[in-house]
Amino acid sequence: MSVKKKIGVVITARASYSRCKTALEAIRDHESLELMLIVTASALLGRFGNAAKVMEDDGFTITARVYNVVESGNLTGQVKTTGLGMIELANVFDSLKPDVVVTIADRYETMSTAITAAYMNIPLAHIQGGEVTGNIDEKVRHAITKLADLHLVSTTRAKERVLKMGEAENLVYVTGCPSIDLAHAVQEREAIDLNFNPYNYGGVGSQPALGDGYLVVMQHPVTSEFGLAREHIEETLWAVEELKIPALWFWPNIDAGSDGTSNGIRAFREIRKPEKIHFFKNMPPTQFLQLLKGSKALIGNSSVGIRECSYLGVPIVNIGSRQKGRERGANTIDVSYDRHEIISAVRQQLAHGPYSGEQIYGQGNAGVAIADILAKAELQSDKRITY
Amino acid sequence: MSVKKKIGVVITARASYSRCKTALEAIRDHESLELMLIVTASALLGRFGNAAKVMEDDGFTITARVYNVVESGNLTGQVKTTGLGMIELANVFDSLKPDVVVTIADRYETMSTAITAAYMNIPLAHIQGGEVTGNIDEKVRHAITKLADLHLVSTTRAKERVLKMGEAENLVYVTGCPSIDLAHAVQEREAIDLNFNPYNYGGVGSQPALGDGYLVVMQHPVTSEFGLAREHIEETLWAVEELKIPALWFWPNIDAGSDGTSNGIRAFREIRKPEKIHFFKNMPPTQFLQLLKGSKALIGNSSVGIRECSYLGVPIVNIGSRQKGRERGANTIDVSYDRHEIISAVRQQLAHGPYSGEQIYGQGNAGVAIADILAKAELQSDKRITY
Amino acid sequence: MSVKKKIGVVITARASYSRCKTALEAIRDHESLELMLIVTASALLGRFGNAAKVMEDDGFTITARVYNVVESGNLTGQVKTTGLGMIELANVFDSLKPDVVVTIADRYETMSTAITAAYMNIPLAHIQGGEVTGNIDEKVRHAITKLADLHLVSTTRAKERVLKMGEAENLVYVTGCPSIDLAHAVQEREAIDLNFNPYNYGGVGSQPALGDGYLVVMQHPVTSEFGLAREHIEETLWAVEELKIPALWFWPNIDAGSDGTSNGIRAFREIRKPEKIHFFKNMPPTQFLQLLKGSKALIGNSSVGIRECSYLGVPIVNIGSRQKGRERGANTIDVSYDRHEIISAVRQQLAHGPYSGEQIYGQGNAGVAIADILAKAELQSDKRITY
Amino acid sequence: MSVKKKIGVVITARASYSRCKTALEAIRDHESLELMLIVTASALLGRFGNAAKVMEDDGFTITARVYNVVESGNLTGQVKTTGLGMIELANVFDSLKPDVVVTIADRYETMSTAITAAYMNIPLAHIQGGEVTGNIDEKVRHAITKLADLHLVSTTRAKERVLKMGEAENLVYVTGCPSIDLAHAVQEREAIDLNFNPYNYGGVGSQPALGDGYLVVMQHPVTSEFGLAREHIEETLWAVEELKIPALWFWPNIDAGSDGTSNGIRAFREIRKPEKIHFFKNMPPTQFLQLLKGSKALIGNSSVGIRECSYLGVPIVNIGSRQKGRERGANTIDVSYDRHEIISAVRQQLAHGPYSGEQIYGQGNAGVAIADILAKAELQSDKRITY
Repeated sequence: MSVKKKIGVVITARASYSRCKTALEAIRDHESLELMLIVTASALLGRFGNAAKVMEDDGFTITARVYNVVESGNLTGQVKTTGLGMIELANVFDSLKPDVVVTIADRYETMSTAITAAYMNIPLAHIQGGEVTGNIDEKVRHAITKLADLHLVSTTRAKERVLKMGEAENLVYVTGCPSIDLAHAVQEREAIDLNFNPYNYGGVGSQPALGDGYLVVMQHPVTSEFGLAREHIEETLWAVEELKIPALWFWPNIDAGSDGTSNGIRAFREIRKPEKIHFFKNMPPTQFLQLLKGSKALIGNSSVGIRECSYLGVPIVNIGSRQKGRERGANTIDVSYDRHEIISAVRQQLAHGPYSGEQIYGQGNAGVAIADILAKAELQSDKRITY
Repeated sequence: MSVKKKIGVVITARASYSRCKTALEAIRDHESLELMLIVTASALLGRFGNAAKVMEDDGFTITARVYNVVESGNLTGQVKTTGLGMIELANVFDSLKPDVVVTIADRYETMSTAITAAYMNIPLAHIQGGEVTGNIDEKVRHAITKLADLHLVSTTRAKERVLKMGEAENLVYVTGCPSIDLAHAVQEREAIDLNFNPYNYGGVGSQPALGDGYLVVMQHPVTSEFGLAREHIEETLWAVEELKIPALWFWPNIDAGSDGTSNGIRAFREIRKPEKIHFFKNMPPTQFLQLLKGSKALIGNSSVGIRECSYLGVPIVNIGSRQKGRERGANTIDVSYDRHEIISAVRQQLAHGPYSGEQIYGQGNAGVAIADILAKAELQSDKRITY
Repeated sequence: MSVKKKIGVVITARASYSRCKTALEAIRDHESLELMLIVTASALLGRFGNAAKVMEDDGFTITARVYNVVESGNLTGQVKTTGLGMIELANVFDSLKPDVVVTIADRYETMSTAITAAYMNIPLAHIQGGEVTGNIDEKVRHAITKLADLHLVSTTRAKERVLKMGEAENLVYVTGCPSIDLAHAVQEREAIDLNFNPYNYGGVGSQPALGDGYLVVMQHPVTSEFGLAREHIEETLWAVEELKIPALWFWPNIDAGSDGTSNGIRAFREIRKPEKIHFFKNMPPTQFLQLLKGSKALIGNSSVGIRECSYLGVPIVNIGSRQKGRERGANTIDVSYDRHEIISAVRQQLAHGPYSGEQIYGQGNAGVAIADILAKAELQSDKRITY
Repeated sequence: MSVKKKIGVVITARASYSRCKTALEAIRDHESLELMLIVTASALLGRFGNAAKVMEDDGFTITARVYNVVESGNLTGQVKTTGLGMIELANVFDSLKPDVVVTIADRYETMSTAITAAYMNIPLAHIQGGEVTGNIDEKVRHAITKLADLHLVSTTRAKERVLKMGEAENLVYVTGCPSIDLAHAVQEREAIDLNFNPYNYGGVGSQPALGDGYLVVMQHPVTSEFGLAREHIEETLWAVEELKIPALWFWPNIDAGSDGTSNGIRAFREIRKPEKIHFFKNMPPTQFLQLLKGSKALIGNSSVGIRECSYLGVPIVNIGSRQKGRERGANTIDVSYDRHEIISAVRQQLAHGPYSGEQIYGQGNAGVAIADILAKAELQSDKRITY
């Protein structure tokens, strides 16, 4: 009888779950792997979409929960959340004894996962390394590359970067991004589910009719521009109101600036009572992608625009510095934090309509590929730079 | 009136202090810099040499103290110490508001300094990046390179590596290692201070006469070989006893394995009551270098062998994997954890005698060079990989 | 030249600041005392009224800030906030070296202050011990009495209880409650400030005219009834809407259940769009008391009703278990979490009108009395039960 | 089918385990109880006797481990250890969901257990409340009484104190102290096990012959006299050496002053090389009690002298303030930290010889009594002072 290899995956946020859901399924269902699902940080909090509950509703069993969000209203909160995460993950790893730990992408609190695994001599696999963005994510992502023992990257250019940073070629795999797997599944369907009504997924604000087309908005605060979050979100709010097109707006992640972003949205709603905007906290990934696929354009700074929308061919208006440097498709118009630029770019996208899909971030089989590599890779936690 | 640039330097261990002492002096004495000296982790603990007290005796003023050593007897302690360090350094940086934070080398707990500065948008300068070793230090060092905004490296090969990892050329400087500044000063003196008696610096065990020559021993546990620490130290203990040459033995750093190393030394002393070995907890850097300069050879796995001894031309017997990959001079014989190999290598070094000094790690002016660069560099905390 | 005695006061919440403001002023202004004001927990957070800013606006200098709120959405958050508070206050006390530490009342996170002082052998003074309530506050308050070395209580019955618990008679003083000092000052004024418009203090919701009378509402979640917070707040919301009298509603403290309470309020506002309710986050204490003095009644479970309103003679409707056991005046009608009971009691109070003020919780000079006792008391941190 | 009541017992130190071992056995073996054994703090550390391993060797299964010892060399370490304990126990209780949590006695870090249970609305049972001592233990013990919902005390006077502090009579039980259960079992045996050789239990130092009688020494640092620990231990060391009677010395607990105590012992051993003293780190409780029973006298400040030795009739010389106020038997002579007083008192006890045993702290059935009460008590976490 063979013992299954224990794969500890740490999920810290709603968006990270969406992004690796198919990998989680493939690990759970793989005959030689055992999934240990560890949920931490904002993924446990109601006001950030309670990803833990979404996972359970999707049929996953949560192995351990780590409550570590420190709220400070300034940048110390990110540091403390990460530090507290390490303190607590050390217990969890000591108790669960995973054979491999998997960390996703580049949110600041994922550093907890990476350091804890590295210091406890547990091999670390990193999904979505090697990309380029602005912001603190850029530092986090590459630092994790230097702590990780296995690299499961989304694009061939990402692989090149990881190799240049001195990682061994036999430990870097281009799997594509698992978020594209969901987009692929949604793309395959004939049309949007006729019974799908986004307003069934809660949220607040008016419920404009969507039949004549709608926009989706998703804008996160940028940590290195802390203090400007409110000003930035207000430009977008005014632009969207001015456009007078129905808009479905998704609440931002927890981040140092989220007070500014959240307060900006709250005050705007209070004062302007926008008639054509509905605000969501969260939606299951598949439904969210259906919504995106059916939309006229995505506005904001989410990586969903760069990744899933390029695959689906949805036009996007990408605001500000957050996605700077990331590979992007023909579907993107970049603008700065300026209501006039935003309005103009949205109108340009409306005039253009849908784009042809591109496969920059994968072909739709990343989840299974990741599970297979985790199953077959012989990993150790000791490594050395290649030059 | 110009305001001085505030340089926050975080010292986490006795050895790190020794290694950057001349840089601290040069920063303190620089007309446009203000030194904020933050002492944490084992540098505050008596059983690891109370580096804080040594600094004060050397005339430094300590700006803040952070008590964060978590003792666990297993690898969780390293994680928790680092996490707790972040939680507390966030307060310290929030309160002191340094313009630049400086972190030294690659000990695991230095990751606290690097992450806290990065997440709080404070430019981070890293001393001694770009080198190669074995062990968790290897991961820590390169991850810190990816978090740092200014690189003050010791060797030209280190600079090449930092550039290859994607750092911008204008932010990487070869300053040499400040530890060589002290070696340089000691080297310049005619001879060992006639009044210098190492036994004045405390310690336990017999006090063999040193007139006919002596060995120095300094061996740290290796975190990735946790569990073997006791076995490893015993090989060295038996070898040194067998050699029947007076030996001055320095107690190891705090580390996951230090229980094994410390217990090994304690048990050996108890049972064997070695007549020719004296054990020190600590000694001021200058006196320690004088002692090294006067010794027949250094035995162990300390980087002092690789750095200062190559400059001074002192023969070394380097044991095990800890310094694997680091640039070294002609003065080094590498051996494994084996008493016979150790004995044989020591005898070979005794037969050879002193080597010519080499300037691999600097020429003796690193401290001043570092302070000057910190004063003139215009830093920001936002960066992007160069490829 | 005499050295001032250093008094470290730790403020953890908006309400605690209001409650001890006159004591802070008296300590600051006392010739032989130096005030060290340490602000922590929700007192630093915008979404709980940013008490730190209010203090600065009131002319206080904040000596240290400790960011320690852990947000978990369940009861672990209270534990972790308190634990993190201890970890950080230890640094603060080690650095500031107060001669005495002062802690206020019975909020869960004040246990951080009490334990840290006790374990560091710093004499601890406790304001507002010896009272009786329901909830976790009851345990916290009496546990702090057993950790404290000086007791500055509000009522003679509180003194009796503290003595019965085994405290030494010479260390228990009835000073009255400093919150009454503010009520006293407001009471002394002829009438409400003619220029005082509560809507200048922000908040959200409609702005009903107040000329014909208004209610004030302030209802906190009860930690031992975690899970019922939303249900409880909804009863009050429905009752207040049904009463059709203008109401000024104050947002609850941060607490384990505040998600339930806050969500209840948010959903109600969203769905019912109440026309006669305005919601405040915060208001400076003096203005708040003016508002109370001018109101028809206070509804909820705040201790402001029991204390200040009994002094001012304002009718109150006290809901549920939170104030159970606390001494109260003739101005109080107790009801359970039931909209019908609430409505009926409010109508009874409206029919009755204002009460005569009572001096159960003090006469208006508590702040000065507290400062004087702190100045003259010779304290030590070692004590023993009296029986 | 009935579900067993889950009893979470938190053990933080070697001595606490010894003191409640029979209660743990009785809970484990009770038909309606499930034991959840949670081991934390110094109970996990090798240098404090690795109580966790002793428990496993005794046949217990450890349910969870919490590594939380912060080493600071000053009093901040106690605070931080306790704070970190809370942060981590919150996770453990959230995950294990015990029906009742049990905490033992009055060590500083037990406050973690008490607060975490109280804040999470889990009924708390406290063993050994209501006694009187000096030191921080005094504050901790009574504060825990005010946090606890069930009191399992050792003596009738302890019960009286707990009632006076305002606890409800139906929740206070005199069970005796479980440590007496072991003493009872040892007392019942005819004589010391002929094959029992204490030197089989490790330790360091000479191994004097014990046939003509021996002393046992156990002296802990006193936290409120931090800084004097080394001076205090030296008086005892000199006295014991001067007496020239074989002595078996047990290493102190982890505590703020343990560096002073430990360093005092180490230096003394180094310099004086005492011929008649053997030093132990730990010994299983039964063997330790056999050793005590066979000894001429116990010297030091351990509560073992006050409790077990009064039952066994072993003479004790109790040094300093640590046990001040605790009920004691005729077997005790109290002395101050003075070598002459110590020597004189030991000689007096040698002249007297064994005393009659007294049952102040129980009759030998406390463990079973505790388990039965835990099984039948209907507990809730909400309480109110009785006056």
